[in-house]
Amino acid sequence: MAFSFTVVKKDSSSAARLGRIVTAHGDVETPAFMPVGTQASVKAMSPRDLEEIGCQILLGNTYHAYLRPGIEVIRELGGLHRFMGWKKPILTDSGGYQVFSLGALRKITEEGVQFQSHLDGSSHLLTPEKVVEIQEDLGSDIAMVLDECIPHPSSRDYTRSSTLRTIRWAERSLKARAKTDGAFFAIVQGGMYEDLRLECARELTGLPFDGYAAGGLGVGEGEASLRAMGEFTAGLLPKDRPRYLMGVGRPEDLVFAVRAGYDLFDCVLPTRNARNGTLFTAAGKMNIRRAEYASDGRPPDESCACYCCRNFSRAYLRHLHQAGEILAAHLMTLHNLAFYHRLMESLRNAIREDKFQDSEFRIQNSESGS
Amino acid sequence: MAFSFTVVKKDSSSAARLGRIVTAHGDVETPAFMPVGTQASVKAMSPRDLEEIGCQILLGNTYHAYLRPGIEVIRELGGLHRFMGWKKPILTDSGGYQVFSLGALRKITEEGVQFQSHLDGSSHLLTPEKVVEIQEDLGSDIAMVLDECIPHPSSRDYTRSSTLRTIRWAERSLKARAKTDGAFFAIVQGGMYEDLRLECARELTGLPFDGYAAGGLGVGEGEASLRAMGEFTAGLLPKDRPRYLMGVGRPEDLVFAVRAGYDLFDCVLPTRNARNGTLFTAAGKMNIRRAEYASDGRPPDESCACYCCRNFSRAYLRHLHQAGEILAAHLMTLHNLAFYHRLMESLRNAIREDKFQDSEFRIQNSESGS
Repeated sequence: MAFSFTVVKKDSSSAARLGRIVTAHGDVETPAFMPVGTQASVKAMSPRDLEEIGCQILLGNTYHAYLRPGIEVIRELGGLHRFMGWKKPILTDSGGYQVFSLGALRKITEEGVQFQSHLDGSSHLLTPEKVVEIQEDLGSDIAMVLDECIPHPSSRDYTRSSTLRTIRWAERSLKARAKTDGAFFAIVQGGMYEDLRLECARELTGLPFDGYAAGGLGVGEGEASLRAMGEFTAGLLPKDRPRYLMGVGRPEDLVFAVRAGYDLFDCVLPTRNARNGTLFTAAGKMNIRRAEYASDGRPPDESCACYCCRNFSRAYLRHLHQAGEILAAHLMTLHNLAFYHRLMESLRNAIREDKFQDSEFRIQNSESGS
Repeated sequence: MAFSFTVVKKDSSSAARLGRIVTAHGDVETPAFMPVGTQASVKAMSPRDLEEIGCQILLGNTYHAYLRPGIEVIRELGGLHRFMGWKKPILTDSGGYQVFSLGALRKITEEGVQFQSHLDGSSHLLTPEKVVEIQEDLGSDIAMVLDECIPHPSSRDYTRSSTLRTIRWAERSLKARAKTDGAFFAIVQGGMYEDLRLECARELTGLPFDGYAAGGLGVGEGEASLRAMGEFTAGLLPKDRPRYLMGVGRPEDLVFAVRAGYDLFDCVLPTRNARNGTLFTAAGKMNIRRAEYASDGRPPDESCACYCCRNFSRAYLRHLHQAGEILAAHLMTLHNLAFYHRLMESLRNAIREDKFQDSEFRIQNSESGS
């Protein structure tokens, strides 16, 4: 079995920990951020760009790969790693989040989720078993169970019945596994109800999963609830397995979540914001569309050593963005991902040097001026 | 004076020659192809991508830079090289081609061209003098005179009066120069009329320009006329100055034009085709959208060593293109430009080794199957 997880060092002041995940495609030092490769590509990035900024592991979207180009093509061509030219680890989601986002286009039953493709309207059924098979075909290093990401707000009754189904699906998923060389993570749901989170965690941690995710957070519940429920859920998860906070989030959320004991993260924020002209910098968020940058010769983030900041000015990036040039998306994505990865590295170093409590990480959420 | 041009070797079988252009931003070994940086960016390429595939010199569009972000911004930020992060030579066009393409939005007088911006409808006047000043502000290594790119077909009367005006504009342009550290090229017009080409070339070569371009070709006159008039015009130009065939063209056109004695080329074909899903390969053009490539694991061009061909399959590129991923444009542009630059390198090597006549260059224009 290729997969393992070791806690290398525990922070003395919080639940933060430095860890190491070993996979067939290499190691991941945690806490780690996973850029999102929605359609077998992290938007505007090539694999070598990702390696350059220190990316250790990607998230690949099962739903999108399933619909286009299709799992069979990827399997025939040697799996997702080879298909997209990425040699390091890949975590694949279950497709559940995307399917549940389809709203009226999907229907949940005990068997699974029936949905219509957002591309051509064709009908599909994703079951827990099918989702296991798909991820095995993709050759993912870490596969996720099919779950329901419960919308917020949801009633206690709905949340409980959905959470119990997610548990039953997790049990079915384990039985469906044909390969055991990769890791398999379960997802704790339970909405905003602590007792349901507890029940779900107790059931799932009684099953032999290699890691556990907290799902259904960052779905509009607000920062206070996200943090309260995120921290509560982290405390329910085994200390000797990786903990993955799904879909979160902003830089300041990552600092919080590392403190709460999470090890893995994914979010489209750095890549999506880049395409919209918003940069994460040491001085806060920077909206490159602002007129004040029109002739600003400084790099976007003066403390950043990425290719974008070493070579280009705010004025140039603003021009590229205004002109609709592809290079705008490329350079700003490169910077935002470099920012996220440097943040994670500084968090790991702080834990390693036992300075986590004292570190400020200088995360500013407000939009910065010049 | 930083600029110089030396013919290093003449081909014994044709007018082809190996040359060296020296500029303040480095040398260019000719014959050379110049990728087009329309809006201060070669679409989907970063400067390091261009360096990687062997790009020696870029073409920058004066018209686009003038309208957005504006010449003043670029000048204040240290010129076009610094603005776009490109350290090697840049040739800037005069903006004339773009202005004349505006059709009803422009009006030509003896003074210059009055036109309305395609961006916001604002009115502008480009004169020969203004165009010199703009290119000096941009800091281009090779500037071009304002000329009229005569539409095809045009009457002999119109062609003659336009060509005579282009000559008068060239005389005014020379007088307007304030800096002489860069090079200044004139453009031979004359439409499809040999005697007008001859008259134009005779007048312009009597003036102290550093190089000469053939303009008004590749504008719909067809391959036979392009070749006949291109070769005729090349023969009218001084042997000791660089000859630039503007806006041409296809790989097979470049082979022809090098044989005819041209040294510099620019064309949007490799970059535009890439974004449309068409790749230039040793086996001919490849339309990556074709269904036959859906599960084709081979690299786009099996004889190519570019980053795209070393790492990605036809199936992956097709998927990226179908999915509208930015990476599709990036990887295919990188390959097409690598193909063009490798072609130019092979042409230079053939001249150097006196094998130009024997070389086939394997240019196929037909669309290739698998």
